[in-house]
This record gives sequence, structure tokens and C-alpha cells, in this order.
Amino acid sequence: MSTRNAISATPATTLEEVALVLERLRARHPLVHCLTNDVVKGFTANVLLAIGAAPAMVEHPEEAAQFAPFADALLVNLGTLTEQQIVAMRRAIATARGAGRPWVLDPVAVGPLEVRTRFAREIVNESPALVRGNASEIIALAGESGAGRGRGVDSGDPAEAALDAARRLAAQTAGAVVVTGAIDYATDGARTVAIANGHPLMTRVTGVGCAMSAVAAACAAVADSPLRAGAATAVLMGLAGDLAAGRATRPGSFQIALLDALDELSPELVRTRGKLHAA
Amino acid sequence: MSTRNAISATPATTLEEVALVLERLRARHPLVHCLTNDVVKGFTANVLLAIGAAPAMVEHPEEAAQFAPFADALLVNLGTLTEQQIVAMRRAIATARGAGRPWVLDPVAVGPLEVRTRFAREIVNESPALVRGNASEIIALAGESGAGRGRGVDSGDPAEAALDAARRLAAQTAGAVVVTGAIDYATDGARTVAIANGHPLMTRVTGVGCAMSAVAAACAAVADSPLRAGAATAVLMGLAGDLAAGRATRPGSFQIALLDALDELSPELVRTRGKLHAA
Amino acid sequence: MSTRNAISATPATTLEEVALVLERLRARHPLVHCLTNDVVKGFTANVLLAIGAAPAMVEHPEEAAQFAPFADALLVNLGTLTEQQIVAMRRAIATARGAGRPWVLDPVAVGPLEVRTRFAREIVNESPALVRGNASEIIALAGESGAGRGRGVDSGDPAEAALDAARRLAAQTAGAVVVTGAIDYATDGARTVAIANGHPLMTRVTGVGCAMSAVAAACAAVADSPLRAGAATAVLMGLAGDLAAGRATRPGSFQIALLDALDELSPELVRTRGKLHAA
Repeated sequence: MSTRNAISATPATTLEEVALVLERLRARHPLVHCLTNDVVKGFTANVLLAIGAAPAMVEHPEEAAQFAPFADALLVNLGTLTEQQIVAMRRAIATARGAGRPWVLDPVAVGPLEVRTRFAREIVNESPALVRGNASEIIALAGESGAGRGRGVDSGDPAEAALDAARRLAAQTAGAVVVTGAIDYATDGARTVAIANGHPLMTRVTGVGCAMSAVAAACAAVADSPLRAGAATAVLMGLAGDLAAGRATRPGSFQIALLDALDELSPELVRTRGKLHAA
Repeated sequence: MSTRNAISATPATTLEEVALVLERLRARHPLVHCLTNDVVKGFTANVLLAIGAAPAMVEHPEEAAQFAPFADALLVNLGTLTEQQIVAMRRAIATARGAGRPWVLDPVAVGPLEVRTRFAREIVNESPALVRGNASEIIALAGESGAGRGRGVDSGDPAEAALDAARRLAAQTAGAVVVTGAIDYATDGARTVAIANGHPLMTRVTGVGCAMSAVAAACAAVADSPLRAGAATAVLMGLAGDLAAGRATRPGSFQIALLDALDELSPELVRTRGKLHAA
Repeated sequence: MSTRNAISATPATTLEEVALVLERLRARHPLVHCLTNDVVKGFTANVLLAIGAAPAMVEHPEEAAQFAPFADALLVNLGTLTEQQIVAMRRAIATARGAGRPWVLDPVAVGPLEVRTRFAREIVNESPALVRGNASEIIALAGESGAGRGRGVDSGDPAEAALDAARRLAAQTAGAVVVTGAIDYATDGARTVAIANGHPLMTRVTGVGCAMSAVAAACAAVADSPLRAGAATAVLMGLAGDLAAGRATRPGSFQIALLDALDELSPELVRTRGKLHAA
């Protein structure tokens, strides 16, 4: 796990490609259909609007199925899963796939909780373009038992501990997997990149990880490959965290500074302050 | 659509009447029963508290029916409509009407989505005091097909394109209709006013339109007519947007500045900075 | 009700004990399972994160039952009660109790609304460590009819009017009861303390009371008695309100300042600025 030694290697995607994803977000305003949890819906919508995308939350099973093809990408987040959401998610995934739209899975708290773990293992077979989770979630979804146990949405494992699981999961989905932690990783199974942007205050605001998965859906709608979308997601969110941490030192004002920073992101900031390395 | 030429005409309601609505909001603190979408519940409550009203969200169908007459007005927003909400909304509208309470319809994303479009066309017959939507929503609710298609909660049409639909809808409901856009319009079918307050940053914060409909319900509880309530809503929200845009230039800090500005609104600010014209 | 005269008496718990609760929150990061209302979920999670605890919202009835013993405490808030939540709450209370975890009841709007009032009177028999409500709610839950009527989540009665009801309720639950108002009170039936921290702006931000109940659950997980947990809750939230009111004068910026202040709380601030008295 020698990230330091890997810095000089050519990563599988570059900051120039991340900058291109950002330019496309601002030009195309991809519409992200979010089937997500009740705690973070408002913040997720504000994150998407701040970075240049557009949110829509349509929850009724019939309408979710009807709406998914209208959107540019679909987010499925299991945070406060209900039976009704299970129905809506299954149907929206089907119609999104039928229309060729990418979808992103955020397997919140998969592992210790049985209903969502069964459901996540079912839908992960539906070719998500991206899976975004912490180490415990990725390990659990890939079928291993982590060294630690997830505590709700926190992770008991460092991101590095999930790299093998992430690569296997990416090979299984034929998409990419993003594991978030102090260092974030994006892998498509064959190639892996490490992203060193981000700040610990991001863990003191609820929904930053969930909103990152919504940004991943927006990126998947405009990027040339799942791996590039995953890497762009981690660089853009992490860089916004870096900028925000330069202006706010406590969680309330940091939350607001993070939204402002997402709006402030520019291709130039990506090129000069992005930290993307081969891993 | 010559707003400029119309400026010298006497509008159907005046800034003095808007100031009066604001004074009554601050004196009476109308309690607004909000049956609204999951994305904006917290922000909607904070907007109502900031302007001087009081929010209550009671969702259980039995309780919603029981509670509506206790409140001063009811908001029905279809953003994340569920089957349970459909039941609760039908019952709350019935008991609110039975008690003589005004109710406001926000037909979020009506048009492309079938379940909510059918439901909106059903309840619009229950005499809403106000309907507040963007151009696409108002056109769809009035039964026309817009030139553009709604993309979730955005509007594909300029507000002006919906004026005929808004006038017909207002005549049908015997209430007023507010169409929001770069310029907002309020009409009771016979008379129409244009409101030029507001700022594009309001579209970069989730729930500003939805919260505006909650403010419309608060205004309907204290105004002398639906048209005055609708005009007051657009002036008050737009003016708060103007004030906030003078203090914040990015969406995170703008959201907070908007709440502060709603608290800061005064009759004097309405009189000196309101932009209300005949249309 | 002579709070002034009572100041010189030795209170049943002390600021030193509140400081100890705060130190434990920061050392142990208790995980609070929140079954709470849709309006305040995001803000509640952010309040818990800001003070040093950790939130988890798991709503599916099966998962809620499975998850409760993993958490350090359970919050049950009736604000937007649904039939599904009733099932999840019953089951989570049972498994939390079975695992020896404390749980906190926030009886939002109990009194005028029948479904939640029946349900609150049922579960209050399940030994909540703490009940936190305004005067109207506590009076209604204890079986009296208040002089005023609750208007949604506001209280028609001053906190003092509910002290007898609170003492009886605490004796019934063998836990403690916190009544919030201009002055907050915590009682275990035999002993009562008054807390004079806090600021009126706290009533202009939605969810401050609800989030206070989540903090109560966090405190119950680490305090040596329900009374100490209740007193600590009122001092910590009130003190954060005092700090925030020194930095923000309007509700939007106050909300953010409150989150920052919760992060800034320290044992030293508790000792020097806490206002805890015998009552």
C-alpha cells in the first residue's frame, strides 16, 4: 500500500480528465434522480445544485419508474431503506438501465443490517456504473467480513483494507468502485487511483458521503468511463473540502463553506490543487 | 408582455397592501400545516419561522385530518408524493375547507409524471386559495402542453408563457395563481400583477420555490384576498432574495443569508424596494 | 416557583457533573439511534455530530429492531408519526431495553393529536430514561389538560406550569423528565433542577427542541443517572445557544452558529457559564 512510491507512476486517469468532467457538469447540468435517505435529501440536493448538476427526488414506485429515463443518472442510497423504497428502487433501476442511464449504488450500513444487505447484494448484480462506500460497506458488499464492524454510517476499517474487495466488486459489476476514507480510492478492477484531497471536518457534517454518491451519479452521466467518474467525484468533493477547511474550522460553518466551495470549483483549481495518484 | 409599459398603470394590489400582509404575519404568526416533500421540510419550516409564521408537519392521515382545522392554512406540495400522502392530503383539504381555512397547492413536476398529475387535477377542483408553480407546472395543470418539458422541478418555459394558463386556472379555482420565474406573476383571472424582485441564486438553493408556497399559505391566512396573498408572497420572497444577494454570492452562504433576510424584512423595505407592477 | 430563592441551595446535580458528561461524549462518541421526524433528521444528525456523538437513522421495522442494541441509546420522536414508524418504534424500544440501552421519548404535539397521544401513553410505560418536551406536551402526557392548547410544536404553557406533571411522570417512569421553556427544568420526581441557559432565537430555528432530545439520548448513554443526563442536556444545549446568540442575531446565521457552538463547548465553558440551580 505504498501510495508515496506510486506518485510518480502515471495514474489511470488524470487531473486534466477530472477538469473535463467538471466542465461538462457546468455545461450540461445533468439531472440526477435521487432515491436516497431521509436524513440527507436536502443537503444532497444543495450539493448537486452547488456543483452545477440538478436534483430530482421522485419516490412513488410508479413515478420513479416513469421518471428514471428522463434523468441523466440515478442514485440509489440505502440509508433509510423502506419496503416502498425497495419497490421504487427496483423499478427505477430497471427503467434507467433500459434507457441506457448510469446508476450509482451507495450501500449505507450494509453489513450489520440484514434487509439492506440482502437487497444490496441483489441489485449490485444490475450493473451499477459506480458503487461508493466506506471500507466496511465495500467489504461487506463484496462478501467478506471486515476486521471491524460498521457503526451505522461510520467505517470500522481504513479504506486501504477494502482495496481487494473493491477490485473484486468492480470486476463483478464491470463498473468502478470508490472507497472513501482519509485517502479515497477509485478502481475499475484493473486500475486503481488514490485521491488525497479532503479534510476530517467532512466527517462532522451529516450526508457528505451520501452527497458524494449523488455527485458520482452526476459525474457518471458526463464522464467517459466509470473509473474517470469515480476519480472525478473524489477529487471534486475532496477539493471542495480542502477549500472549505481553509475558511471554516467548525462543522456548522464548514457545511456552508463546503457548498460555496463546490460552486467555486474550477478546472484551474482541479489542475493546481487536485491530488490524484496511481495506487 | 410589455412589463415596462405597464409600470405606470395602477396595479391590482399595492406595496402598501403587501406591507400590511407582512405586519399581520408578524402580529398573528399564522400556523401553516405543511404536507410537503421530504427534500424541503426542514428548510420550509425555517423559512416560515424566519418570516414570522409557524410551521407544523402532521403526516398521519387521521392526524392530518384532525389537525388541519387547528392550523390557519394548509400547504399541499406534491414533490415526493406517496400513496399515504395522497390519503392524508385529501382528508386534510376536506377538513381545512370545512373549517374555512385557505389551502395552497404547489404542483411540483406536474406534467411529465402521471400519478401526481392525475391527483393535482383532482384536488385543484377543491378551491385552493392559491396555486404556486413554475410555467411548465401551471401550463400542465391548466391542461395545456408546454412548449418545453419540465425537468423535475425546473421549468422549461418562461413565466410569461404560462400567463394565459394561469388566468384560466385562477378563474377555474376562484382563487389566485402565482407563476414564478425571472419575473413572477400573480393573477386572479381578471387582474394580473408582475413582481420583479428576486435573484438567480434563488434557483441554486433547493426548496426556495417550495418554501415560497408555504409562505403563500401563511399570507393567505392573513391577506384580504388570494390575489393580495399571491402578490405579497412574490414580493416578500423576492425582496428577501434581493437582500441576501447583496450579502452572499455563492449558494451555501446565500441560503443562510436568505433566512436572515426573511427575518429582516420590514414594511419600510417593502415600500422602498418592492417591485410590483400591473401586468 | 421561586427560582431566585433556590439559587443558593445545592442542586441535585452540579456543573462539574455536566462537564463530566461532556467529557464522556467527546471520549466515547455515543451512537444514537434516532427514530425521529422528517423535518429535523438532517439537523438532528448535525447537532449530534457537532457535540461529539454519532447519529444513525434506521427506519425499517426489522432493521430498527436489529439495530437498536448496536447503538448506545435510542431516540423516539413522534413529530411526523406514521403507522410504519409506530411498528418500528415498538420493536426498537423492545430490543433496546432488552440490551440495556437507555431510550428517550420526545412527545411532540402530544395532547391535541389523538394517534400520537394514544401511542405516547402506551410507550411511556416502557421505562424511558428521559422524556423531553415543552410544558403542554408534558402536561398532556401526564394525563392533565393544560390551561392552554399546544399549537403544533409550540407550547401554550410556561415550563413552570408543568412541574407537577413532570414530577409525577418521572415517578411513573422511574427516569427523569426535562421540561423546556424560557427556563428549563429536569426532575427525577424527587429532585428538580432549573437551567437558565438558552436564548429566544432557539425557537426561531426548526428542530432545536427535537435535536435537544437526541442530545438527551447521547447524554443518557454516558451519564450516571437520568437526572444528570437531563440536566446536562439542558445546560449543554442552552450554553451553545448563549454562545451562538453572541455571534448571530438572525435565525439563519444563528442555526449555523449553534452548530459551531456545540463543537466549541468545553468543560471550562460549562463550569464558568453554566446556569444550573436547585428548583
